[in-house]
Amino acid sequence: MFEKTNRMNLLFDFYQELLTTKQKAYVSFYYLDDYSLGEIAEEFEVSRQAIYDNIKRTEESLEKYEEKLGMLKKYQQREKLFSELEAQLTKKNFLDEQVKDTLEQLKNID
Amino acid sequence: MFEKTNRMNLLFDFYQELLTTKQKAYVSFYYLDDYSLGEIAEEFEVSRQAIYDNIKRTEESLEKYEEKLGMLKKYQQREKLFSELEAQLTKKNFLDEQVKDTLEQLKNID
Repeated sequence: MFEKTNRMNLLFDFYQELLTTKQKAYVSFYYLDDYSLGEIAEEFEVSRQAIYDNIKRTEESLEKYEEKLGMLKKYQQREKLFSELEAQLTKKNFLDEQVKDTLEQLKNID
Repeated sequence: MFEKTNRMNLLFDFYQELLTTKQKAYVSFYYLDDYSLGEIAEEFEVSRQAIYDNIKRTEESLEKYEEKLGMLKKYQQREKLFSELEAQLTKKNFLDEQVKDTLEQLKNID
């Protein structure tokens, strides 16, 4: 469960702009703010089942986008290589202020 | 015109998986293979107008995806910073084989 929440949060970070306003709202209440389905249902005055179905479909959409675009996967590959690069540069004493700064700028582009 | 073709090719590279089979086909004939609308119409046995409308809508979709996800923009920002980093490392004699290799791997993740 924790792993799924974590993955959904990450996918949401990358693809939320492709979701509808309603999808965004439900998913962020559920995964980011940890509301229960019942609480979200009350908040939006719709049935618990409607919330459940909507979130379920959104999860499928997010996985579909990831399958097609792979933004999360590429991000994680990049993170791993940035760490390796940083370790290599540090070990060789190559990580001076300028190099460090450029590397930081690179890492800040998600 | 050349600039637009170039941009459409780049956007197509990033977002083609989000297009329908037909959209992909028309756009790649038009922008990648430089067919005329008339030639594509003949190829698919539909009207020139239908091809035009479809490609026009696809262009709008590609721009919309870029607006929402910014994969091309981020790619270009990254390219620029990779060049800077490489220049800095080269100038300081820090670009040895290992560092070069890790950097190449990083650049190969689009």
